[in-house]
Amino acid sequence: MGDRRALVITSPGAINLQGAAELVPGPGEVVARPVHTGICGTDLELVAGVVDPAYTRYPLVPGHEWSGEVEEVGERVTTLRTGDKVTGETVVGCGRCDKCKGGINPNFCRDPTVYGFQTRAPGGFAEYVLREESNLSKLPSSMSHDQGALVEPLSVAYHAVWGLAGGVQPTDTVVIFGAGPVGLYALAVVKGSRARAISVDPIGMRRDLALRMGADDVVDPVSQDPVKELLRLTGGHGADLVLEASGSDDARSRVFDVADGAGRVVMIGQTQMKKIPVEMEKLVTKGLTVRGAQGSPGMFPRTIEFLEHSPYDVTLSISHHFPLPNVKEALDLASQRTGSAKIILTN
Amino acid sequence: MGDRRALVITSPGAINLQGAAELVPGPGEVVARPVHTGICGTDLELVAGVVDPAYTRYPLVPGHEWSGEVEEVGERVTTLRTGDKVTGETVVGCGRCDKCKGGINPNFCRDPTVYGFQTRAPGGFAEYVLREESNLSKLPSSMSHDQGALVEPLSVAYHAVWGLAGGVQPTDTVVIFGAGPVGLYALAVVKGSRARAISVDPIGMRRDLALRMGADDVVDPVSQDPVKELLRLTGGHGADLVLEASGSDDARSRVFDVADGAGRVVMIGQTQMKKIPVEMEKLVTKGLTVRGAQGSPGMFPRTIEFLEHSPYDVTLSISHHFPLPNVKEALDLASQRTGSAKIILTN
Amino acid sequence: MGDRRALVITSPGAINLQGAAELVPGPGEVVARPVHTGICGTDLELVAGVVDPAYTRYPLVPGHEWSGEVEEVGERVTTLRTGDKVTGETVVGCGRCDKCKGGINPNFCRDPTVYGFQTRAPGGFAEYVLREESNLSKLPSSMSHDQGALVEPLSVAYHAVWGLAGGVQPTDTVVIFGAGPVGLYALAVVKGSRARAISVDPIGMRRDLALRMGADDVVDPVSQDPVKELLRLTGGHGADLVLEASGSDDARSRVFDVADGAGRVVMIGQTQMKKIPVEMEKLVTKGLTVRGAQGSPGMFPRTIEFLEHSPYDVTLSISHHFPLPNVKEALDLASQRTGSAKIILTN
Amino acid sequence: MGDRRALVITSPGAINLQGAAELVPGPGEVVARPVHTGICGTDLELVAGVVDPAYTRYPLVPGHEWSGEVEEVGERVTTLRTGDKVTGETVVGCGRCDKCKGGINPNFCRDPTVYGFQTRAPGGFAEYVLREESNLSKLPSSMSHDQGALVEPLSVAYHAVWGLAGGVQPTDTVVIFGAGPVGLYALAVVKGSRARAISVDPIGMRRDLALRMGADDVVDPVSQDPVKELLRLTGGHGADLVLEASGSDDARSRVFDVADGAGRVVMIGQTQMKKIPVEMEKLVTKGLTVRGAQGSPGMFPRTIEFLEHSPYDVTLSISHHFPLPNVKEALDLASQRTGSAKIILTN
Repeated sequence: MGDRRALVITSPGAINLQGAAELVPGPGEVVARPVHTGICGTDLELVAGVVDPAYTRYPLVPGHEWSGEVEEVGERVTTLRTGDKVTGETVVGCGRCDKCKGGINPNFCRDPTVYGFQTRAPGGFAEYVLREESNLSKLPSSMSHDQGALVEPLSVAYHAVWGLAGGVQPTDTVVIFGAGPVGLYALAVVKGSRARAISVDPIGMRRDLALRMGADDVVDPVSQDPVKELLRLTGGHGADLVLEASGSDDARSRVFDVADGAGRVVMIGQTQMKKIPVEMEKLVTKGLTVRGAQGSPGMFPRTIEFLEHSPYDVTLSISHHFPLPNVKEALDLASQRTGSAKIILTN
Repeated sequence: MGDRRALVITSPGAINLQGAAELVPGPGEVVARPVHTGICGTDLELVAGVVDPAYTRYPLVPGHEWSGEVEEVGERVTTLRTGDKVTGETVVGCGRCDKCKGGINPNFCRDPTVYGFQTRAPGGFAEYVLREESNLSKLPSSMSHDQGALVEPLSVAYHAVWGLAGGVQPTDTVVIFGAGPVGLYALAVVKGSRARAISVDPIGMRRDLALRMGADDVVDPVSQDPVKELLRLTGGHGADLVLEASGSDDARSRVFDVADGAGRVVMIGQTQMKKIPVEMEKLVTKGLTVRGAQGSPGMFPRTIEFLEHSPYDVTLSISHHFPLPNVKEALDLASQRTGSAKIILTN
Repeated sequence: MGDRRALVITSPGAINLQGAAELVPGPGEVVARPVHTGICGTDLELVAGVVDPAYTRYPLVPGHEWSGEVEEVGERVTTLRTGDKVTGETVVGCGRCDKCKGGINPNFCRDPTVYGFQTRAPGGFAEYVLREESNLSKLPSSMSHDQGALVEPLSVAYHAVWGLAGGVQPTDTVVIFGAGPVGLYALAVVKGSRARAISVDPIGMRRDLALRMGADDVVDPVSQDPVKELLRLTGGHGADLVLEASGSDDARSRVFDVADGAGRVVMIGQTQMKKIPVEMEKLVTKGLTVRGAQGSPGMFPRTIEFLEHSPYDVTLSISHHFPLPNVKEALDLASQRTGSAKIILTN
Repeated sequence: MGDRRALVITSPGAINLQGAAELVPGPGEVVARPVHTGICGTDLELVAGVVDPAYTRYPLVPGHEWSGEVEEVGERVTTLRTGDKVTGETVVGCGRCDKCKGGINPNFCRDPTVYGFQTRAPGGFAEYVLREESNLSKLPSSMSHDQGALVEPLSVAYHAVWGLAGGVQPTDTVVIFGAGPVGLYALAVVKGSRARAISVDPIGMRRDLALRMGADDVVDPVSQDPVKELLRLTGGHGADLVLEASGSDDARSRVFDVADGAGRVVMIGQTQMKKIPVEMEKLVTKGLTVRGAQGSPGMFPRTIEFLEHSPYDVTLSISHHFPLPNVKEALDLASQRTGSAKIILTN
């Protein structure tokens, strides 16, 4: 059928909105229709071909931030029914390797299924998706699809803070590098626990968004010396927690400078693999704990509940909506990075 | 008295073994005679003037790895008496700053007393030292002064593993960069829990020592590609735990390469503050937990017990003994680094 | 001087407001004047003689919840000056035992100094107190003495949640047994992080206070079956975290019943040593983590900051003020338990 | 076929070794032949009908401690082939409930599959079993089936120590209540890390086994006052870690008595649900951390490796072997408890 379309990236640079086979749910499976799907920075990297070859497999249908509705359920499906609002997880472990059997985050599985990154695991830039029931999480009926599409990226920030950083107390001061979507979700999580948050971003529109979403202070790392300013804002001592959500070399090389002794740093932002000059000695002399964030294992139930009750409006991070057929236009805008925040494709 | 001598570093480069005032213990204080005192790499840095200005204060008497005997106790001292074997802790918090009141490691105190690094806090390269009773830990009478002098450096390794890395299981594979004294003590701690240990060091004598002290494998990073070889030795996956005990730029730039996904890295080795090129992205994509090790807060009781019962002979790390008056000769030998392991001054 | 008075409990039942010696600060010491001092349940136990013989020593001056002003500082005191608002910590470790040298909570010191519980460590039911500078924490000048007197009991609740329970997330549901002062402070900490809180107390006035201080639900364990009602309020599953702040046998025997599988329980409330019938099997089959709370090590900096910015008015827990000379009247009222919440003595 | 038999418990008390249907592996499935299968105390409870109704479903085939060989693999099975030695996990989460989606231990799943406890999930007291590939773990070819049958019960002990108790250091003193199979496996784990272990059991044969498997001391709680003796053996202070592996009321009521301040307690032993008198106040005043152990999530890879290299011979815990047809005789012997340790059925 002509209206069963999906965006296929055949190979880096070659993208096409094309017809797709009809999906029929087998036992334990569900077909859902993504209604709103967000564009993530990694989707742009899939288009550009700047990817992790360990798990990316072309051709592929991208899109791992989606909110949709159940279209049809297979036999033995017990927790979902047609019409339910749902979203899906990105990474599923193989269940058979040492990491999976060891109960480790499926992102470190030796052979993970990664929806939106592999031929065998099509993502949400499509009119329909097929998933195991266990891959899907039911959303409250009161939740909008804009909110639902933010569950996945918000869960990454939630995992960084609550899964890796040991949580945030109301007495913590947190520096967040980056006020793009991930940085804003990290901000929402931090302010959700009433900690003090300082957002750092060179783009004025993003700093404004950060302020509207609860940031106590913002720092422009271009017009100000960010290290000096962040130390000034933290009584000369640095932050209890530093969240790196920009993926920029500049921010990465400064995370150790603005953390207080015995402080925590979580690196969320991803970027290309390259060497950057870092004063590793500061990590040692300050006794820092630095953690790399991957995925959001076990976070969806809490993220959905958090989003439902969040005192801050996380959807302020959404700057544009495009219908799915206009996906190339949307990707172009997203690629410019400065003129937009989160962009949503509608279906 | 002419025989109450101490090694004083007046300023970088200016060292002198000179007469010292007689020490009289006040209430709660103890005078002890260091019998064996080890030379640490930081002692060489104090001589050279390559120091952390945050807490170093010249003139100073160096030496923070000592084992001695109680000479005289002041009033109200209840746990020690003349003749007891003792060693002392290096860092004491001020008790008044936010870090101390917050129960944080005294190494992050805003105004720490650091024995062997400050004018007000003379170290163990002296015939007598004066300390608060609470600074001293009693050693078993059966423990040799060679063992006693290793309590402090061993406690740093013990803290890295048990205080920061979450301990080691018999099923862990641990890579240890550096088989100098700190690396060997890390090795002793790792093998003490029956984990698998692989030591990496460019110096043959050190690799031999590592093998004698229980290393399962050793790697020469000069004749072999260390990353390739370490991955080969770990089934292609990398280690569960990486301990960086060399302080070398080479090792520091490789720690992320040889850790398995979701692995742990503890950086113990110290060096000068400078930027080195690091692939920080690997910390992120591998989801590593990286911690900087400072001091050994709360570790002395366990370290002393560990040393007493260690199945491996930690004193194998001692290569030379010199009488205190020959301290300059000892420091010269230590500065060459390759011809010695731990050097002990005797008194 | 006749006006340098202190309340002395000579032995159980024998209390007397009597003259006290003038206090002169030695080096590193501070004399402060408690302005507001709260009555804790353990103060009543000291009067009654229901005490832990391990550390209680009569005669003693009770009172460990006080807020005061610095009257005079001794030599070498650097962080405080006359007129500063301060409060003091209750328990100080000896610094010499295995627990202290091991960095353990000073409440488990083998020979702790406990202010307000020992002859050698007089508490705050007095016109003046003498303390080491390190025992005191400066309060913000904007903080009232009512707030300051709550720092110590609030820090116990803060420690229970953030030191022992791993913190609370906005998505946690927390059951708090007891809405007396400690239960209300636990409630303040829980709501301070936006978690859902359900308070359980048989006394209507206390349930009302809980609601005014932010409780989402309250349960009367007399008119309702508390287990049934708490399970109903938690979707049949039980709570993520149970805080036992009543010390009552009834509550203690139910904590395991109302926790969800893999849940956490922290026992704060203290009571007499006696055996009560408990279904320990539930602790096992539910895989609970149960922790006993003692003191508030390292919590004062965070508690003071929390109290300063708390969105809930913690002083609502204060029901009465009495001048110090009326202390017996105040103790009598407190002993009745039902007609009051926190009672403050003023000086 | 007459030789495809399985032991079926139709209802409490009604057991029968009967013919079973032929098993054919579907896609992703494996048929294996249990060669050695251990009898666990819970198997006896299944026969007696003393079970947890939350997940037990009659009729059922018991047996969750087995070691076998792969007979046939279905399509898409990639990690196993005919002849491989394997064992299987007991509990599999549904993947669809809040606990599973939250990454919680599958023992707390709202609808778990429990092999050996449910009609839909037959256990290893059978000539053949059918499992998902992901349920099975490959054993080293050098491992005996006696060892393989101990992987599951050993993994429970391994989880208690390394998953729940934070591990054991060589400097820890550990009291283990019970020297039946689970207690002996806990002992093996504790001694595997060179901690000091004291086993408590009223049965002489079990204390002897404990000594042979490495216990440093044993205590007979009948001829000696166990609390007094355990305090004497721990310098008056109690143990760093207490492992309750007996499930007896006596032991359970004493765990808090023999733990040192700030100590840890893990309750492994299971028993009937009933109230026993406990001094809960000791949990509070000692600041203990008490955890209930359920299952062994994520432990098989480490347990298999541990068993392979264990310096102690864990199979010393095996007292008898019976061929599967003699299963009733074996169950009778096991029910007497005192004349046997671990009993193995062979196939």
